[in-house]
Amino acid sequence: MAKGNINVSVENIFPLIKKFLYSDHEIFLRELISNGTDATSKLKHLIAIGEADTELGDAKIEVSINKDAKTITIKDQGLGMTADEVEKYINQIAFSGAEEFLDKYKDNEAGIIGHFGLGFYSAFMVADKVEIITKSFKDAPAAHWTCDGSPEYTLVEHDKSDRGTEIVLHVAEDSLEFLEESKIEGLLTKYNRFNQVPIKFGTKEINDPEFTPKTTKDKDGKETTEPHKQITVDKIINNTEPAWTKKPADLEKEDYDNFYRELYPMQFEESLFHIHLNVDYPFNLTGILFFPKLSQNMDMQKDKIQLYQNQVFVTDNVEGIVPDFLQMLKGVIDSPDIPLNVSRSYLQADGAVKKISGYITKKVADKLSSLFKKDRADFETKWNDIKVIIEYGMLSEDKFFDKAKKFALYPTVADTFFTFDELIEKTKDTQTDKDGNHVILYAANKDAQHSYIQEATAKGYEVLILDSPIISHLMQKLEGGDGKIKFTRVDADHVDNLIKKDDNVISKLTEEEKEKLKPIIESAVNSKSYTVQLEAMDSNSSPFIITVPEFMRRMKEMQATGGGGMMGMGNFPDMYNLVVNTNSPLVSEILNNKDEEAQKGLISQAFDLAKLSQNLLHGEELTNFIKRSYELIK
Amino acid sequence: MAKGNINVSVENIFPLIKKFLYSDHEIFLRELISNGTDATSKLKHLIAIGEADTELGDAKIEVSINKDAKTITIKDQGLGMTADEVEKYINQIAFSGAEEFLDKYKDNEAGIIGHFGLGFYSAFMVADKVEIITKSFKDAPAAHWTCDGSPEYTLVEHDKSDRGTEIVLHVAEDSLEFLEESKIEGLLTKYNRFNQVPIKFGTKEINDPEFTPKTTKDKDGKETTEPHKQITVDKIINNTEPAWTKKPADLEKEDYDNFYRELYPMQFEESLFHIHLNVDYPFNLTGILFFPKLSQNMDMQKDKIQLYQNQVFVTDNVEGIVPDFLQMLKGVIDSPDIPLNVSRSYLQADGAVKKISGYITKKVADKLSSLFKKDRADFETKWNDIKVIIEYGMLSEDKFFDKAKKFALYPTVADTFFTFDELIEKTKDTQTDKDGNHVILYAANKDAQHSYIQEATAKGYEVLILDSPIISHLMQKLEGGDGKIKFTRVDADHVDNLIKKDDNVISKLTEEEKEKLKPIIESAVNSKSYTVQLEAMDSNSSPFIITVPEFMRRMKEMQATGGGGMMGMGNFPDMYNLVVNTNSPLVSEILNNKDEEAQKGLISQAFDLAKLSQNLLHGEELTNFIKRSYELIK
Repeated sequence: MAKGNINVSVENIFPLIKKFLYSDHEIFLRELISNGTDATSKLKHLIAIGEADTELGDAKIEVSINKDAKTITIKDQGLGMTADEVEKYINQIAFSGAEEFLDKYKDNEAGIIGHFGLGFYSAFMVADKVEIITKSFKDAPAAHWTCDGSPEYTLVEHDKSDRGTEIVLHVAEDSLEFLEESKIEGLLTKYNRFNQVPIKFGTKEINDPEFTPKTTKDKDGKETTEPHKQITVDKIINNTEPAWTKKPADLEKEDYDNFYRELYPMQFEESLFHIHLNVDYPFNLTGILFFPKLSQNMDMQKDKIQLYQNQVFVTDNVEGIVPDFLQMLKGVIDSPDIPLNVSRSYLQADGAVKKISGYITKKVADKLSSLFKKDRADFETKWNDIKVIIEYGMLSEDKFFDKAKKFALYPTVADTFFTFDELIEKTKDTQTDKDGNHVILYAANKDAQHSYIQEATAKGYEVLILDSPIISHLMQKLEGGDGKIKFTRVDADHVDNLIKKDDNVISKLTEEEKEKLKPIIESAVNSKSYTVQLEAMDSNSSPFIITVPEFMRRMKEMQATGGGGMMGMGNFPDMYNLVVNTNSPLVSEILNNKDEEAQKGLISQAFDLAKLSQNLLHGEELTNFIKRSYELIK
Repeated sequence: MAKGNINVSVENIFPLIKKFLYSDHEIFLRELISNGTDATSKLKHLIAIGEADTELGDAKIEVSINKDAKTITIKDQGLGMTADEVEKYINQIAFSGAEEFLDKYKDNEAGIIGHFGLGFYSAFMVADKVEIITKSFKDAPAAHWTCDGSPEYTLVEHDKSDRGTEIVLHVAEDSLEFLEESKIEGLLTKYNRFNQVPIKFGTKEINDPEFTPKTTKDKDGKETTEPHKQITVDKIINNTEPAWTKKPADLEKEDYDNFYRELYPMQFEESLFHIHLNVDYPFNLTGILFFPKLSQNMDMQKDKIQLYQNQVFVTDNVEGIVPDFLQMLKGVIDSPDIPLNVSRSYLQADGAVKKISGYITKKVADKLSSLFKKDRADFETKWNDIKVIIEYGMLSEDKFFDKAKKFALYPTVADTFFTFDELIEKTKDTQTDKDGNHVILYAANKDAQHSYIQEATAKGYEVLILDSPIISHLMQKLEGGDGKIKFTRVDADHVDNLIKKDDNVISKLTEEEKEKLKPIIESAVNSKSYTVQLEAMDSNSSPFIITVPEFMRRMKEMQATGGGGMMGMGNFPDMYNLVVNTNSPLVSEILNNKDEEAQKGLISQAFDLAKLSQNLLHGEELTNFIKRSYELIK
């Protein structure tokens, strides 16, 4: 039996890193800046506890490009390293320390980002030679480490006298794009615009604040002001203290508004309201989520929730971390506890991530609930912008449903906003039919269903406006509750049948007359899509009404918006009822007209008018109707 | 000066692999099957060139699960390894061979997948102990290698007598999901359903083909057939010779149809046509792309182009490889030359990938061109399904535009299909206005613009139906050509003004009458959205027409569909012209009506009818119009 060790040699481990370890080369800069940020934070900490005898000063990280030398330099003023430390952290930890590395990564105190080690080696993704020039805060000479990507390195003394670490990347031929200022500035803005330590990249001219321009008068009394003196200052690209790192108590509404604009500079609308997240246990998470105004703006969809780790941008794909129904929100989440660089399926199985998602859902529900209680009128004005999110949440998360049931609103065509309980209470007497069904009437569109709404409100019914794409699924869920609640669209039947009471309207037409009338109308209508129904209605109601039975229509809608509904129903043709009001004078006139042509003409015109109410008259039919109607007014 | 080697120790390199090297743990199975496939192919090759004295037989790869032992076994009948080879390939090559590994990877002969080495080690993503039991085709004892994820391994002899390699994975506690049959079958179907070597996973019962059931007659002449004999056979989950690996000359249309159904079993529609890709130089690429029928079906969007590498599935995200405008196609691309596991930005910069994208574009253009030439009538019937893809391509790729200009079609309301050149030729005499502008008329919707189309075709004009979402951008591009071509929608003006000729229609109304009429109409219309224009038109034309000026409308449309248009235009209110036909008898009647109420009534009814033509009459206005119209027919 043989026993041995698997032999791992470092030769060319770099190309491997370069190709596989990180899927995106550009993150090298994020990694190196994180190292510099760490070095600065650690020094600050050591000074605070009296273990470093130095001044932190105005410590920043400086990024610069030298196009001639083809180098990028990242320079910090952090704790620096002695030659021994370089030996330890750079030369050894890289791979031998994978265990330690992963341990740290699990540790809440330290994030995956910003540890010398693997992060540092990502430099070789874009550089074929890397130098480290570093001087420790301790009393030791500066060290100069050079490596060309082979496992060989050199380590010599250096005369650097100021504290901190300078990383010089000699950019490889295939990565020259990173020598463009716009590229580097783009990366800094993407990953580090809320970095904890200020990052300097270039300089800019500003008016000298200590200089006041003199104004002089010439002999005519004309005033001349001398030009303002310009001075050159560092261009700092980041905000080291973004709003989410502060305490909610220290922030005003204006601060949140400003932060929203800072996050999404192309977004001109303000947010509706925000939710400040802040939790320590059982995981660490801070952040601010915003409910945006609904917008047709395409750019709006690009403004996604951003995920940070200790103020370093990681991704704006928060699938698995933020529940689906909240992905329309905007804002920032910052957590050292979310495993990065792992697959989505892994994320979805991760217990911590599930808890985060649950926590966010709960916080959102609580915030909405408190907004509703605190200022209901204001909540109502915002309802149209937030309803899709809430309704989607009610459908997809049962825990959210239970909370949202108390504040989800049902607006009526008269602009009253009911909660579900209020709605039930308000309508239970008037809208319960003779079989005990409590019928909730709704319209999808105030304009398109105007005439139907008018008839229903004239009867004293409440008519809701329910127009979200997923509302039919939610209705199904709400109806499921006790079996006696039924949602019915106002055009599902003529108004007397929507909520059947016991009172019968007497028909002016006899049974024989009806039997005579029906085939006349059927032959004039001549369409399989319409079922002719004779009904005795108020004589002032329309002579013809087109109705769309609820069940079929809703099944089709549900299928169109995904899931639910009945399989294959989506391809069924639309079916309508043509309700003929036997008490309408026009209908009597049709019945009694002896001139067959005139009779047909009357039916056509009345049928076309009924179609207009349902937006069913188009193309040639409409053109002909218009011509006929011009004739009628001449 | 110090000089040294970076010290990489293997301790715990496995956790690193596990966490970072592959973002998705599930690919371990693909990697191990690829190893087995390689071992089988290599043996086949050695036999063919006389270097292996053995029979390949019915070599397959067998995958099995043992839930009690918590193991997954992958067993091939390939060339196997001697103990020395295990030593070399498993123990050494893993990391030391990164260079060799990457070299092979660049080599067209061998793909990245399927090399012992890193691929094998992905086993440790799901297993905490891995065994290899292997017997070479050479005359040498079998070897048994075991490793628990530490760098220590054991290697002993084994009594395995049949040729090939067996990998036994002892599944780790956090990966027990992979012991589910449905999970493994899902992975095999996802990654390996076109694997080059048959893969057996489980068994199934089929009718014994060698058994013919006997039929006997009883005394009444009643026949009874004995039950068919069932036998158990291997369940092979893959098709080793998918259509794209064959020569186009060897395939019939039916073969392509069957392959389309094989790829997308949930897709019931056939494809419109296919493009068989096959190129050796300067890169290797095979594949079949299908033009699908346009479908509202949600599932259709899930059926994406799949990328394979030597018949192993890699991804269905082909962004960067297939040009954007062709991502609506379906099918398969197989290439060993596409770098995998690298970032999207890297892909986009890669020269080979750019060439692949260019090649695919060219092949698609050539195929479309040949279909157009071979059977134009057939091409025309397919136009509506393919136009969005072609128009998008014309907008985004200039090379494609140049080719597509010859076969892109412009259908008219009369169902004639013109090419651009034919269209220009056909309309140049009738549709050039007095200023030399060649006006191409179009409608977006045959129904919605019916009355306008009717007026234009009555004049002998050709009216195109252009209804793709991006068509306004394409028009802009086509107009750009020589500056004299102008696209104008039929409702952009009244028909005499769409293409202004010299012939003037004489107005029946005097200038004074017109001056009197205009404010009467303006005050009745009473809306800032409408500009009243008096025009002398044919007396039989409609009294009132609503028109939508081309420029503004198109800018708004372009902005709504992204890019182009004029900034901020999207938020402008809709503006219309109300064209009043001064030669219409109704207009004279309005002018001469002394009863102010009746005059207003006439204007309202005529205005409502004009609105109906443009689908602008809604809600209360429509309900009132309908009531008024019922009154008119009583």
